[in-house]
Amino acid sequence: MTFPLPDAIAALSRTPDVLDALLGDLGDGWTRHRPADGEWSAHDVLGHFIHGERTDWIPRARIILDHGTKVPFTPFDRDGHVAIAADRSTAELLDLFRTLRAENVAALRGFDLSTDDLDREGTHPAFGPVTLAQLLTTWTTHDHVHLGQITQALATRYTTEVGPWHAYLWE
Amino acid sequence: MTFPLPDAIAALSRTPDVLDALLGDLGDGWTRHRPADGEWSAHDVLGHFIHGERTDWIPRARIILDHGTKVPFTPFDRDGHVAIAADRSTAELLDLFRTLRAENVAALRGFDLSTDDLDREGTHPAFGPVTLAQLLTTWTTHDHVHLGQITQALATRYTTEVGPWHAYLWE
Repeated sequence: MTFPLPDAIAALSRTPDVLDALLGDLGDGWTRHRPADGEWSAHDVLGHFIHGERTDWIPRARIILDHGTKVPFTPFDRDGHVAIAADRSTAELLDLFRTLRAENVAALRGFDLSTDDLDREGTHPAFGPVTLAQLLTTWTTHDHVHLGQITQALATRYTTEVGPWHAYLWE
Repeated sequence: MTFPLPDAIAALSRTPDVLDALLGDLGDGWTRHRPADGEWSAHDVLGHFIHGERTDWIPRARIILDHGTKVPFTPFDRDGHVAIAADRSTAELLDLFRTLRAENVAALRGFDLSTDDLDREGTHPAFGPVTLAQLLTTWTTHDHVHLGQITQALATRYTTEVGPWHAYLWE
């Protein structure tokens, strides 16, 4: 297992700042833009991040640490962001995510995990056995994947307006 | 033409902050990671952003404003980032980009463009006629596309370590 926990914490800690820099004070024309029907806007992704902070990463880590493989994780609701995003402004989502992420990174540091701890296993409802290291690496990677989704949503605001450059940007 | 210049300036102005939040103080293990041979790391993309600030967006806008369609743009060198990135740290690239972007956004504001100006045309070496609005929209979109490339490069650091979650993240 080559997963360096300090590198993960370094990346996880900065995501609220990345989101604020990317989206804070940008208008809804940017943050609510969906690339296509059924795809997610930056605002929607923020709701998904918040839902993950509440129900996925640290709650699942606690299940591994407290119960090992005996208690399977609660399945993650991929539509859990809808209610979160529906009645909040983008600024409110950014603030809420910052608070939750800070609490969760503090919890992660507080676990004071050893290398042996990182090898401890839990039970994923679909995959079966997974390790704590896999869960924490996925948390970090999930940040970067969905930051990419946000930037791609922003990038698609002006697909027509770029004119012939469309060929260089997307083809 | 529905392109709102203030929205573009708002997005362009914040890209140095996004990059600092995403990459500043992250180790080379993150910033120099290439998803595959021949693909770009975050560090490489920073070199590409810098090369664009120096040779693409504002220089081309000046050609349109000064010469219209009579003087074609200088072709953009897609390998122009190599020398820029080769002998600088990621922190140095972040600082250099911040300086150049600030100068270029100041230049853009200084043009004090009217709606008629945005319709002025230049000559792209491959596409032929393009408008100033298309150039400026592409500048903005190009930021978001390559921010996505950076987050995807970061996301691929741990493709093995995520274990079975690989299926949810990329398949």
